[in-house]
Amino acid sequence: MSEPKLSSQDLEAQLVDLDGWTIEADKLHKQFKFPSFVEAFGFMSSLALVSEAIGHHPEWFNVYNRVTIDLTTHDSGGITLKDIEWARKANELA
Amino acid sequence: MSEPKLSSQDLEAQLVDLDGWTIEADKLHKQFKFPSFVEAFGFMSSLALVSEAIGHHPEWFNVYNRVTIDLTTHDSGGITLKDIEWARKANELA
Repeated sequence: MSEPKLSSQDLEAQLVDLDGWTIEADKLHKQFKFPSFVEAFGFMSSLALVSEAIGHHPEWFNVYNRVTIDLTTHDSGGITLKDIEWARKANELA
Repeated sequence: MSEPKLSSQDLEAQLVDLDGWTIEADKLHKQFKFPSFVEAFGFMSSLALVSEAIGHHPEWFNVYNRVTIDLTTHDSGGITLKDIEWARKANELA
């Protein structure tokens, strides 16, 4: 069974604790900026391991020191607790 | 001095040998598809090392097993031999 999509209220409650993340086009969205490409790609590498471990993968864009991330749970048709968990992990690793 | 931007003729000549790459919005563009996220991110990791080694970085987007890449040389205001070199390396590594 797929993770249930969060209600607007539940999502807003989660966002309070999720520094820098916003909703854009129905996805959880954040841009991270680092001193250089090395740090930016190191961050992505750490999160690649996390993604495989929890079986949940981001949509992400990188150019030099910037990493732009969008999260959604395709099977559930929206944002779920899996996305929240991933976003929290990204904040810890940044 | 920055690498000179390639003329349309030189660029077309280079594209002949560059399997799968096209020009989109004045950038060298290609989408790669892999069996899974692990292979897709492994490909990106290899190219991250190449990018640091040659001092030239891509604009790239990844979602699960797909990696979409755009190349341009900002200092030169267009596509240069550095982008061609990077694209060739990507084809070798895919």
